Amino acid sequence: MPTYRLDLAYDGRGFHGYARQPETRTIQGVLEDALFLHTGPVATVVAGRTDAGVHARHQVVSFDSDRDLDVDRVAGSLNSMLGGEVVVHSLVVAPPGFHARFSATARAYRYRVADAHVPDPLARHLQWHVPGPLDDMAMSGAAASFEGEHDFASLCRRAPGKSTVRTVHRASWDRKGDVLEFDIAAKAFCHQMVRSMVALCVEAGRGRIAAESIATILEARDRNAARGAAPAHGLVLWDVSYG
Amino acid sequence: MPTYRLDLAYDGRGFHGYARQPETRTIQGVLEDALFLHTGPVATVVAGRTDAGVHARHQVVSFDSDRDLDVDRVAGSLNSMLGGEVVVHSLVVAPPGFHARFSATARAYRYRVADAHVPDPLARHLQWHVPGPLDDMAMSGAAASFEGEHDFASLCRRAPGKSTVRTVHRASWDRKGDVLEFDIAAKAFCHQMVRSMVALCVEAGRGRIAAESIATILEARDRNAARGAAPAHGLVLWDVSYG
Repeated sequence: MPTYRLDLAYDGRGFHGYARQPETRTIQGVLEDALFLHTGPVATVVAGRTDAGVHARHQVVSFDSDRDLDVDRVAGSLNSMLGGEVVVHSLVVAPPGFHARFSATARAYRYRVADAHVPDPLARHLQWHVPGPLDDMAMSGAAASFEGEHDFASLCRRAPGKSTVRTVHRASWDRKGDVLEFDIAAKAFCHQMVRSMVALCVEAGRGRIAAESIATILEARDRNAARGAAPAHGLVLWDVSYG
Repeated sequence: MPTYRLDLAYDGRGFHGYARQPETRTIQGVLEDALFLHTGPVATVVAGRTDAGVHARHQVVSFDSDRDLDVDRVAGSLNSMLGGEVVVHSLVVAPPGFHARFSATARAYRYRVADAHVPDPLARHLQWHVPGPLDDMAMSGAAASFEGEHDFASLCRRAPGKSTVRTVHRASWDRKGDVLEFDIAAKAFCHQMVRSMVALCVEAGRGRIAAESIATILEARDRNAARGAAPAHGLVLWDVSYG
């Protein structure tokens, strides 16, 4: 039975997150409903579940089907049905054993913060407006302390019994005018980890905490030691890597 | 009686254009309704009327009021009431004789076209998706033929008795990956002129017309000689200059 790989992007604004839930509009829900016409009942797996309101520039889904799909025709049909909020970039037959989640070697996220004195109406669904100015040097210092292997229990929504040790390959802030972009990559993230990091960095950018105190917050391994989570709408799953 | 100058930006998606109309949601309508609390009945004038769905990064409005407004407080109040779709950047007392429309010396617009094989769901309300690839050199050639003084009757919605002669200061295309940005500036534009230019440039980019034939289309001074108008959602009033 062939495995299919589907690469997609979506605007998370109108969805209650990625994962299928009863009576709720989710990305997985509309995607599997659209796929159903071609595959019959199908169970998809996803590289990175995203929370309500989080976007994806590049997400990857895989599924098995005993149907011999005309992949280009199915991709076109999905794009017609999904109406521009969810866009299929490609649908291909994957190598044997491919699994969107377990085969992934890295995930990258981008989070945008804008520190102009008023928000940009054309980007208000894509960036967190924090009336500034923010000290981006302090934010870069905060980001650097996330790099490497750490127990991120302070930055993860509690999932009892699960490890919260993760290895962050890189984390940095880059200012482009009034917009500050946080880019971070790791093999995997725990739930709310990126948005919790952003909330801490913004506190550092406001001068409310020192970049050096981030190490202490991580060592506490206590969710209450952190500063909550930045809003979902600034977050984009930027890329997923394989092999 | 002082004249006030209000600089603003807006997401045109939810509005039937700038100009006030009965029973319809327009930028001028919501702005004057919000101002009313501070000024009483007020008649605003605007630098550049925008059509339904067109956005503004920088629009300018002026109005006279016999009230002595606390401008910072009024600007903050407007921003609270307008809810992020319309954003006031500043409100100041203008020099005597200032008129948002007649004092303006130049208007600049930007139009975005994306020629990736699928649209970007995060930018679908800000750019016209034309499955490409488009030949941006041909589009630059087409843009160059708009520069200088011409009778743009072929590119203007008919307004009998009004001159359609305009002077374009600059018009150019710039490719940034899959996005092509058209930047154009002139003292003034006639109705639908920018979007009509974009439609012609895209026809040139698709290889359907030669850049050289634009001169012939302009010389025809006939709306039917052109290629209609590009969709509104790709257009942004980028800037207005004074003095």
